[in-house]
Amino acid sequence: MLFIKLKTEPNIIAMNSPAISFQWFQILIFLLVLSISVSSSAAQYFNDIPRLSLILEEYSHDHQVLSATSVSEDLKTFYYTQTLDHFNYNPQSYSTFQQRYVMNFKYWGGANSSAPIFVFLGAEASLDSDLAAVGFLDDNAPRFNALIVFIEHRYYGKSIPFGSREEAFQNASTLGYFNSAQAIADYAEIIMHIKKELMATYSPVIVIGGSYGGMLASWLRLKYPHVALGALASSAPILYFDGITLNPEGGYYSVVSKDFRDTSETCYQTIQKSWAEIDKVASQPNGLSILGNKFKTCNPLSSSSELRSALRLMYAYAAQYNRAPRYQVSAICKGIDGLNSSLGSQDKDVLSKVFAGVVAFYQNSSCYINQITNASETAIGWSWQRCSEMAMPIGIGNGTMFEPIPFNLSIYKEQCESFYGVPPRPNWVTSYYGGHDIKLILQRFGSNIIFSNGLRDPYSSGGVLKTISPSIIAVTTVDGSHCLDILPEKGTDPDWLIRQRKTEVKIIKAWISKYYVDLKAYKQ
Amino acid sequence: MLFIKLKTEPNIIAMNSPAISFQWFQILIFLLVLSISVSSSAAQYFNDIPRLSLILEEYSHDHQVLSATSVSEDLKTFYYTQTLDHFNYNPQSYSTFQQRYVMNFKYWGGANSSAPIFVFLGAEASLDSDLAAVGFLDDNAPRFNALIVFIEHRYYGKSIPFGSREEAFQNASTLGYFNSAQAIADYAEIIMHIKKELMATYSPVIVIGGSYGGMLASWLRLKYPHVALGALASSAPILYFDGITLNPEGGYYSVVSKDFRDTSETCYQTIQKSWAEIDKVASQPNGLSILGNKFKTCNPLSSSSELRSALRLMYAYAAQYNRAPRYQVSAICKGIDGLNSSLGSQDKDVLSKVFAGVVAFYQNSSCYINQITNASETAIGWSWQRCSEMAMPIGIGNGTMFEPIPFNLSIYKEQCESFYGVPPRPNWVTSYYGGHDIKLILQRFGSNIIFSNGLRDPYSSGGVLKTISPSIIAVTTVDGSHCLDILPEKGTDPDWLIRQRKTEVKIIKAWISKYYVDLKAYKQ
Repeated sequence: MLFIKLKTEPNIIAMNSPAISFQWFQILIFLLVLSISVSSSAAQYFNDIPRLSLILEEYSHDHQVLSATSVSEDLKTFYYTQTLDHFNYNPQSYSTFQQRYVMNFKYWGGANSSAPIFVFLGAEASLDSDLAAVGFLDDNAPRFNALIVFIEHRYYGKSIPFGSREEAFQNASTLGYFNSAQAIADYAEIIMHIKKELMATYSPVIVIGGSYGGMLASWLRLKYPHVALGALASSAPILYFDGITLNPEGGYYSVVSKDFRDTSETCYQTIQKSWAEIDKVASQPNGLSILGNKFKTCNPLSSSSELRSALRLMYAYAAQYNRAPRYQVSAICKGIDGLNSSLGSQDKDVLSKVFAGVVAFYQNSSCYINQITNASETAIGWSWQRCSEMAMPIGIGNGTMFEPIPFNLSIYKEQCESFYGVPPRPNWVTSYYGGHDIKLILQRFGSNIIFSNGLRDPYSSGGVLKTISPSIIAVTTVDGSHCLDILPEKGTDPDWLIRQRKTEVKIIKAWISKYYVDLKAYKQ
Repeated sequence: MLFIKLKTEPNIIAMNSPAISFQWFQILIFLLVLSISVSSSAAQYFNDIPRLSLILEEYSHDHQVLSATSVSEDLKTFYYTQTLDHFNYNPQSYSTFQQRYVMNFKYWGGANSSAPIFVFLGAEASLDSDLAAVGFLDDNAPRFNALIVFIEHRYYGKSIPFGSREEAFQNASTLGYFNSAQAIADYAEIIMHIKKELMATYSPVIVIGGSYGGMLASWLRLKYPHVALGALASSAPILYFDGITLNPEGGYYSVVSKDFRDTSETCYQTIQKSWAEIDKVASQPNGLSILGNKFKTCNPLSSSSELRSALRLMYAYAAQYNRAPRYQVSAICKGIDGLNSSLGSQDKDVLSKVFAGVVAFYQNSSCYINQITNASETAIGWSWQRCSEMAMPIGIGNGTMFEPIPFNLSIYKEQCESFYGVPPRPNWVTSYYGGHDIKLILQRFGSNIIFSNGLRDPYSSGGVLKTISPSIIAVTTVDGSHCLDILPEKGTDPDWLIRQRKTEVKIIKAWISKYYVDLKAYKQ
């Protein structure tokens, strides 16, 4: 794990590995610049694109999720010798790497009965975090007599091409193979390999993924119907590309804003007022240091943007990962509204109120805002993915609790190209996977996909929220946030979440039943 | 065009271009070795895999087809700046090349009425030959008010990456981008580009292809339903891969054999006897020169395999391209059976009979069997495609008029690797496109594909011959050969061919009608 010591001491970088290339160092600085010390307004929207993750490991409240789930002892780890480039035949493309996957045979009914196979498609994280965080497979495999498989995404965890992370992340030449089409082909190959090894030719495969992994699940079903019978795509914003949605820029932050307003009108208004207040203080003599003191920043603020950006991200993550038992949006608003008595009275100024929200979110840290953080492999990997292919145009429109920050495609392109040396391809996702007019296209094509979304999840603004056909089904929950349905079942789960999961299980059961009928007829 | 002078003078090669690389030279020698001078039995099957082409330009009887059709003067030529590698983000992948496509607006109803677009997907040939040979679009566009588009396949004709054929075909590094997934992505990008330029967002696109191009058409519909509403896949052997069919090796040649037997039992038996006869003569002193004289070979025979191989290919092509007015299988059998009075009496020996068949096929050439031939770009291109991705396991099984030559995967791999430096990926087609258990997989997935096959076409043994679902439909003709339905309508067309085309047009009309109903509902 990489460790960025201090923004003001950019040369001091401690790493596990003694070998550090200049390029590697550059990536760190890029992330640092993007995530902490953005100073130009042009770069702000770039900074404010929240991670598209199943869970957010960096925040303490997610550690609860991780530690709450014990990883099953029945999991067995395997490695598959994977082709580096499925779509080329030059000598380099034949290079291979070891791709990790794990299986749990405990509940499986076996190949003879063509018992199902549930495959979780790893996304932009090490498989270890998925194993700890995802519950859908463990919870439901006994109900289906299903084999459990988790596959790690290339360039994450232990599935690294070119021998090491240092080599793999060296430059665009080594990173070029790091994209969704290759990853989905990896999954297809591994699933076919497993079925062959287990002689489970006719076992139906259900692929499951959350967030970016949910996109992969739906796309795998669409591109490889011979590999997966169906897909559960949880919180997959497959329509957040290339101007598909009517509000392409503002979608994400308008949901964040709505979440806060629905929770507390006064909280919403306080946040809305705070941006001008921050600027006002910042423009005073010693303004930044006043702000730094006010927010107990871990390091001196380099600009007011740094503070604004960190606050925006905090609100975003609170909304995206809002869930029982903490309900982070409520926690922040309780702080801001002064309802948390330990944090003082209600007659505080706007910035003190906002700071009380920060304290509530971070749960009494020793300092805030620009903490020294590890640059997670998710952050590093997703930075590349967003700058090459996953070019979601997330900005901030009008009419929210935020200041508007329109998404600027040309600046985005410029920044990515200047850092990675190659420009993004912002139209490729819709070229390869479609998305425009999805109802018109898929109502008579394809089958067996569940698009599940919680409408309080900001990414639901790019999700499929309406059922497309009798077997391409949208399942939404009014109060849900990001990927709740595939997290482990818990005693604190609200009724609507329990119902949502039951609906999904029922749909998948129907797919499999119909498949068995077809299979019987086919074999006769 | 390349010109191979003589096998015995391998260094004498005349080219249009003065620049000739060693690699280029090697490819020529490889083709030479494969197509003319195969001496080891191990390599025989390699030699005997007939070209998977819409038409076969090298044979004189196809020149009739080419010259019979005048290329429309309404065609306008365009070039699209195409991405070299759609599935990678390394700097090389951003290279571009100019890809040719042509359009004919004469019949188009225009974007305002969402009039259809017919797109012919070029296959392993220059677009010029398709424009001359394909009639389906010109014949039917007026009936649909359709725009006509023909797109050239990368690495053929004028759509050559790396600036020149010499560079593009230099080695596996430059050839690596030459595969079907990239080609289909090219087509998708160009179609989307055309629709955007013409503001024809809601014009339904029907893709049409024959043979390998028919595979591309069906795969494009399956992979890019947002780009094409439907596909007409004429004579597309998408099941001739990876052991999908029950008779994977023998399929092709068993149909050839059946075609001859159905035409004439005596002809069939004469051919069946001829192989042992050839060997018998060859084993005599001066046997090869006796055979050479008997068959009026253009050059001395290097082995009896050379003769056997040429004969097999002749029978194969006669069956594959059997059509009015000549009906090449009948022509050969008339020669063999001595029914063609000018070629002499029926009491000839077996080899004289076979030679009479050769003369009937080639229509009185000055010499036969090992003529000096141009290595067409189709031959050169397809050699790479077969050695990388299009690994159809064509051998010869038992019970035909041929000697059995089992397909040997390991020798095939070895030969390809030794020539191109990279091994083929014989499982990739089924990994990426599927094919196994196609009825089970596609009966509830996908829509709007016509698989048309003539059952006398040897490649129909790898075709989809049974309807899969109400909109994935097999159209077969008992007497049809390769791709007849998409050739130009002619006065000599038999009734069953006229009916076949009408059926196809009716199906496509129904797709488009249903689409317009959907579109109307969607826009409301």
